[in-house]
Amino acid sequence: MRFDETYAGNMFIKSHQNYEESKAVLYGMPMDWTVSYRPGQRFGPARIREVSVGLEEYSFYLDRELADVPFFDAGDIPLPFGNPEKSLAEIKTFVRKVLADDKIPVGMGGEHLVSLPVMEAVYEKYKDLAIIHFDAHTDLRTDYEGEQYSHATPIRKIADTIGPDNVYSFGIRSGLKEELQWAKENGMHISLFEVFEPLKQVLPTLKGRNVYVTIDIDVLDPAHAPGTGTVDAGGITPKELLAAIHEIARSEVNVVGFDLVEVAPIYDHSEITVNTAAKLIREMILGWVK
Amino acid sequence: MRFDETYAGNMFIKSHQNYEESKAVLYGMPMDWTVSYRPGQRFGPARIREVSVGLEEYSFYLDRELADVPFFDAGDIPLPFGNPEKSLAEIKTFVRKVLADDKIPVGMGGEHLVSLPVMEAVYEKYKDLAIIHFDAHTDLRTDYEGEQYSHATPIRKIADTIGPDNVYSFGIRSGLKEELQWAKENGMHISLFEVFEPLKQVLPTLKGRNVYVTIDIDVLDPAHAPGTGTVDAGGITPKELLAAIHEIARSEVNVVGFDLVEVAPIYDHSEITVNTAAKLIREMILGWVK
Amino acid sequence: MRFDETYAGNMFIKSHQNYEESKAVLYGMPMDWTVSYRPGQRFGPARIREVSVGLEEYSFYLDRELADVPFFDAGDIPLPFGNPEKSLAEIKTFVRKVLADDKIPVGMGGEHLVSLPVMEAVYEKYKDLAIIHFDAHTDLRTDYEGEQYSHATPIRKIADTIGPDNVYSFGIRSGLKEELQWAKENGMHISLFEVFEPLKQVLPTLKGRNVYVTIDIDVLDPAHAPGTGTVDAGGITPKELLAAIHEIARSEVNVVGFDLVEVAPIYDHSEITVNTAAKLIREMILGWVK
Amino acid sequence: MRFDETYAGNMFIKSHQNYEESKAVLYGMPMDWTVSYRPGQRFGPARIREVSVGLEEYSFYLDRELADVPFFDAGDIPLPFGNPEKSLAEIKTFVRKVLADDKIPVGMGGEHLVSLPVMEAVYEKYKDLAIIHFDAHTDLRTDYEGEQYSHATPIRKIADTIGPDNVYSFGIRSGLKEELQWAKENGMHISLFEVFEPLKQVLPTLKGRNVYVTIDIDVLDPAHAPGTGTVDAGGITPKELLAAIHEIARSEVNVVGFDLVEVAPIYDHSEITVNTAAKLIREMILGWVK
Amino acid sequence: MRFDETYAGNMFIKSHQNYEESKAVLYGMPMDWTVSYRPGQRFGPARIREVSVGLEEYSFYLDRELADVPFFDAGDIPLPFGNPEKSLAEIKTFVRKVLADDKIPVGMGGEHLVSLPVMEAVYEKYKDLAIIHFDAHTDLRTDYEGEQYSHATPIRKIADTIGPDNVYSFGIRSGLKEELQWAKENGMHISLFEVFEPLKQVLPTLKGRNVYVTIDIDVLDPAHAPGTGTVDAGGITPKELLAAIHEIARSEVNVVGFDLVEVAPIYDHSEITVNTAAKLIREMILGWVK
Amino acid sequence: MRFDETYAGNMFIKSHQNYEESKAVLYGMPMDWTVSYRPGQRFGPARIREVSVGLEEYSFYLDRELADVPFFDAGDIPLPFGNPEKSLAEIKTFVRKVLADDKIPVGMGGEHLVSLPVMEAVYEKYKDLAIIHFDAHTDLRTDYEGEQYSHATPIRKIADTIGPDNVYSFGIRSGLKEELQWAKENGMHISLFEVFEPLKQVLPTLKGRNVYVTIDIDVLDPAHAPGTGTVDAGGITPKELLAAIHEIARSEVNVVGFDLVEVAPIYDHSEITVNTAAKLIREMILGWVK
Repeated sequence: MRFDETYAGNMFIKSHQNYEESKAVLYGMPMDWTVSYRPGQRFGPARIREVSVGLEEYSFYLDRELADVPFFDAGDIPLPFGNPEKSLAEIKTFVRKVLADDKIPVGMGGEHLVSLPVMEAVYEKYKDLAIIHFDAHTDLRTDYEGEQYSHATPIRKIADTIGPDNVYSFGIRSGLKEELQWAKENGMHISLFEVFEPLKQVLPTLKGRNVYVTIDIDVLDPAHAPGTGTVDAGGITPKELLAAIHEIARSEVNVVGFDLVEVAPIYDHSEITVNTAAKLIREMILGWVK
Repeated sequence: MRFDETYAGNMFIKSHQNYEESKAVLYGMPMDWTVSYRPGQRFGPARIREVSVGLEEYSFYLDRELADVPFFDAGDIPLPFGNPEKSLAEIKTFVRKVLADDKIPVGMGGEHLVSLPVMEAVYEKYKDLAIIHFDAHTDLRTDYEGEQYSHATPIRKIADTIGPDNVYSFGIRSGLKEELQWAKENGMHISLFEVFEPLKQVLPTLKGRNVYVTIDIDVLDPAHAPGTGTVDAGGITPKELLAAIHEIARSEVNVVGFDLVEVAPIYDHSEITVNTAAKLIREMILGWVK
Repeated sequence: MRFDETYAGNMFIKSHQNYEESKAVLYGMPMDWTVSYRPGQRFGPARIREVSVGLEEYSFYLDRELADVPFFDAGDIPLPFGNPEKSLAEIKTFVRKVLADDKIPVGMGGEHLVSLPVMEAVYEKYKDLAIIHFDAHTDLRTDYEGEQYSHATPIRKIADTIGPDNVYSFGIRSGLKEELQWAKENGMHISLFEVFEPLKQVLPTLKGRNVYVTIDIDVLDPAHAPGTGTVDAGGITPKELLAAIHEIARSEVNVVGFDLVEVAPIYDHSEITVNTAAKLIREMILGWVK
Repeated sequence: MRFDETYAGNMFIKSHQNYEESKAVLYGMPMDWTVSYRPGQRFGPARIREVSVGLEEYSFYLDRELADVPFFDAGDIPLPFGNPEKSLAEIKTFVRKVLADDKIPVGMGGEHLVSLPVMEAVYEKYKDLAIIHFDAHTDLRTDYEGEQYSHATPIRKIADTIGPDNVYSFGIRSGLKEELQWAKENGMHISLFEVFEPLKQVLPTLKGRNVYVTIDIDVLDPAHAPGTGTVDAGGITPKELLAAIHEIARSEVNVVGFDLVEVAPIYDHSEITVNTAAKLIREMILGWVK
Repeated sequence: MRFDETYAGNMFIKSHQNYEESKAVLYGMPMDWTVSYRPGQRFGPARIREVSVGLEEYSFYLDRELADVPFFDAGDIPLPFGNPEKSLAEIKTFVRKVLADDKIPVGMGGEHLVSLPVMEAVYEKYKDLAIIHFDAHTDLRTDYEGEQYSHATPIRKIADTIGPDNVYSFGIRSGLKEELQWAKENGMHISLFEVFEPLKQVLPTLKGRNVYVTIDIDVLDPAHAPGTGTVDAGGITPKELLAAIHEIARSEVNVVGFDLVEVAPIYDHSEITVNTAAKLIREMILGWVK
Repeated sequence: MRFDETYAGNMFIKSHQNYEESKAVLYGMPMDWTVSYRPGQRFGPARIREVSVGLEEYSFYLDRELADVPFFDAGDIPLPFGNPEKSLAEIKTFVRKVLADDKIPVGMGGEHLVSLPVMEAVYEKYKDLAIIHFDAHTDLRTDYEGEQYSHATPIRKIADTIGPDNVYSFGIRSGLKEELQWAKENGMHISLFEVFEPLKQVLPTLKGRNVYVTIDIDVLDPAHAPGTGTVDAGGITPKELLAAIHEIARSEVNVVGFDLVEVAPIYDHSEITVNTAAKLIREMILGWVK
């Protein structure tokens, strides 16, 4: 991590050199030890940073430049391979500090389980928290074949903590029958297949709320994001996802933290997923860090 | 093949262990010796089965689980390399048995020519048969540079057998001028470029009919199905193909057999084509095997 | 180049054997030495020709066959590696000859800078020239980190020559803030994100005009064209690009030359980009060479 | 696992159908959650089985056929993702049963840590056990950044259990200075860079001993085994590794169990690593199961 | 084929423009329909030609340039997809003509079966013919699962025709027990695993003989030739294969024809196999066409 | 470059944080604009650094650790795309400073032309300079199709400057007839095909001399280094190259600078080339920076 003197990794384009002056803090959570299918998400953050140098720093969508938004790239949080419990604790400790310093945490996964300690830390600070969740999968299992810590469980666990009615999932197209049932019976907001239209309906109801946004890259169709763990046909396009990001930017919710997870460069032979991830992060920073 | 004691291959997720109790029989037709461009379709069925373990068994689209539909995975039919005539005969023999046992044949290709003996066997049983055909290519040639057995001819040959007016092709965007002319002059139903809308028009006219559905994966745009022999830009999305499958499921046609062909894993570096194929097969089984 | 007796390269499907009798001349410009990100565009033309043999020669969209349009494939123009100035001079010399012989130049890139000398040569002949430009990027820089010759500058340079109000860009989604400002302040026509609808608006205003069309393959979304230098999510589909090509074909503009650039086969592991490029060239030739 | 009725995976070529009659039991240990670099070893066993169908069953080296050696393929041991402790326990339970039934355990990894519980179980049965270890890496760490369970520790842990002087490592070319020192100071046998010649020296001294052989595929040079987690140039060729296997077969040691680990198909784009692994397993079974 | 006016393919570097003046004729045999494992050999010849442009025309090994050896590249022989019988007939017809014109046939495969009609045609002309065969596989089956035409049978069939004692195989490391037995019992010369040393022994005994050399690229270790159908670890290096080619060049045998087969570019992601194949062909032409 | 405050790139493992205290300075020269075949060498340095984190810092060959050798990683020198003249000037300016500060320049390419200005700057300081050159290619052309600046010319140009008898090339296996002739006629030392044995002969004759070592990664066989521009079969193994590096370390020459060039990650699908390059750089630093 960059606070460490010997840090040798790269940084996101136009990230600020000074932690104190920054409004947002970007960090990687290179964990993939509980994924049930294709691993390799640990390399996501570093590769996203690497290709970020090919990005323009200006957004034609938002008419804003990265130079206008002071954000600090803290590098990857060092995580103990194969130890999910300790890994999540390390993440939570880091994010608590970011929040204590009144900065917005901006995470890059890593498997989706890394979002759990972040959301828990954000909830410690913002008790009215709502979660906006873009994903192909429900991630609502209580456990995965007996394991509590699994990339299939984070949304369920945060829903249990903040209340299912404060969780809004979009683009869902895969999961267990029981997961869908649980969501419906417990008042969770879940929109199947689509993202932009249902989000547009929901945003006015969240006016003034503190919101954490977690995006699993597999909400995109596999053609647009082959570089992920579990590919599931029938997803949305980057155009729709960008429109959703911009809709949130224009809305009256207060984004207090966000992440993009499940980028696995190993399967991303033409680097379209990591390039798309870098662009999404640019748009989120430009749109949501006010 | 799995009837053989020494069968060592894998099986589709949640396939039934018992042939007798099954309603449908899944089988691979690992043939690619007449393809005129990129071969490798022989590996399609095995790889589709392999990635099927990553699928959920429940469909959010149809609210049904694979466990509710007893289907038996018979493995791949052993076919003699380089001998199309004998290969087609082996396929026909196998499918006749499946039909005689009153089960629905569910084929995985292999090149498109493998559909011909299946459709012929189905026609032996159902004399009012109609064919629904999703494809980028007409496949209406009488021969390919002199060869009768070619992946460019199966639809023409079945049309000659059951009558062109019983054949309905959708999504077609490539072929010879002569093929299109023949189709038009002989009363074949052919919809260029689009699938869902023209299918929706046609389905009511097929009410009560016995129908065989054959899907060439290249009806999808190459972005969504790079793992096939002949890629041709301008195809449909998986969303549209899924919608078409579900429209058939909701219609009043009687699906008596179906297949998905031309999956060639060699070109499918991120495995998005085989994963999509596995999902399509799940949806077809859940939607069409009543 | 094919005029050279020792030419050993391949040729586009159904290209004519006779230069004199041809209406259009296809040529490759295998240059990539000024690209700022991923190189390899030099191999674009040869690979497009190679896969063109898998194309049907008939278009279902235009009901016309390549045999109906005599075009000559001149092979690749030999260009000196690492010398942009001399390379551009070689291209201009070649294109001037094609124009002098009253044939339509049809170029394959190569990086986008190769279009500059072609457009200059065309402008020498047609003083009322308008440029139609499909691209993800503005390409409006005056220089790239001090270099005049860069793949980021060709549209600016031709705009300076023929006047910005004669340049029409579509599908643009990336660039510097300054580039967009310059375009707006100088009367250039620039349509962000979309291609088909704004083109449809513009075409009637160009009625009777001589037009050169330059297409950067990255106007397509990276899912559809991974084989290019700079991938930028949120692009259009091949369906929309084909529709735009056919709209121009149906319009009353006079296409006096065109090109397709930035195809980089190295990143095109399943060959979907080169196959798409070959199809686009077929459609442009069939639609625009009257 | 194949004892489970619903097992749907594939099997190694010519594996026997009957557990009771088998002399050896092949099983996969699909674990990769503690690897410190490139993961994906979980897919090794299944892909090795898949390509084994392309193997001849006869060995030109040993003049023996697989049909002569009854071995049972038990499939993959189901392991809980992200939980190393429980995973190792499951493996040990399984291997204890195999040993109790007087069969030779033949393991396929998975990361190298999976060998630890196997060696421990074998040691429970054979108290004079010696380990022969082929690897690029020492694997002699006591922990990896604090974690006890790591793919960098298994040889140290077994050495601590059975005594370092009963461990023979060959082909080692990478590790910490401290690891090498520990090995030297504690009487472990360690041969740097080479395999065949030092092994030939050592084997007579092991005459009559019960021996477990563990092979990390990365003992091969990366050119021959790109499909692994940590590639380190300067390794041996398959010719040398085959010669070593055959030397053991001709020696008077008693091989009571063996494994091949760290095959990661994700990086094995041409499938040369998995094909090599399948051949090595054939040779080990033919040479060592008497 | 290039005799056809509409030939659009590429040519081998420095091939001669004039058939009549040439001493040797290079041609492709793009057939892969009988392969029992990985297909794609049909694309071998075209891709070898394509990369040949990167070759120097001078050999440091032989101190000779391609310009010194007039050879004509006839392009690929058009073969009917999926029809082995007719394909072999087309090849034989072509090679008979080359031989009748007193030119040396130089073939590029395609699967190994394509060598059979060539060797038969050569034998028609040279009744004292000996075959030198480099391969990982015996290719001595009488049939493959009932099929006479198979890439596993060509050496057996030519041995039956010219007598097994006139066949010399080198580098063999895979096959059936029965094949090896047949070779030994019938006086065929077969050298397992090694190429250079046994060849050096044999060449003096062939002094003055007319010899056809057929090289299956898989005689190389998979690390050096991943781009082939059946990869089998433990093969030789290009250094050894080049040394063997040069040993033949220096010997007193009379090479009357030769080929290089089983190059399958689909699996050759870094193009090392096709580049090696192009170099081997250069060395064979420079060394053997006197 | 890292002297620049906004530098965002990564660094080589265990590189020192302090320029002043360092003995050697590592830097990238990301240039590929004059390569005549496959470009992409610009990405070599960054990718080598990235994978260096997977390296052990200790060498089993030299019994030395990176921590013992203070070296500073200066990042990549920013070079103007497509302008070789200015690029070479930038490199020379940088290296002059390193030399003026009495530090050893350690370069990573980039195409081989980048070595030219470095060698020139080193020669300015050390007038008795000898060059040791490992490469598959002579690189002795005076120009490449008229261009002075080409990756085919650097050794010729430095030989012209320091005298051909001060240049020692090893492992050469490809070039023009004229290049070889020139080398022989002008007293250059050139060893074909082999590296270790001829180097061992030469080193004693260079005792006490100041030596610059330039290694083109393509001196390795393509199996070991597919990630480079021009692959040429018949090269050496990493074992031989490591032995050569260690032989120089043990010799009495004074290494005053060195580089490793022509690493092109685009073709290095399993990352074996970049990992090998990182290890070679570690060994060179540990062995040569005294």
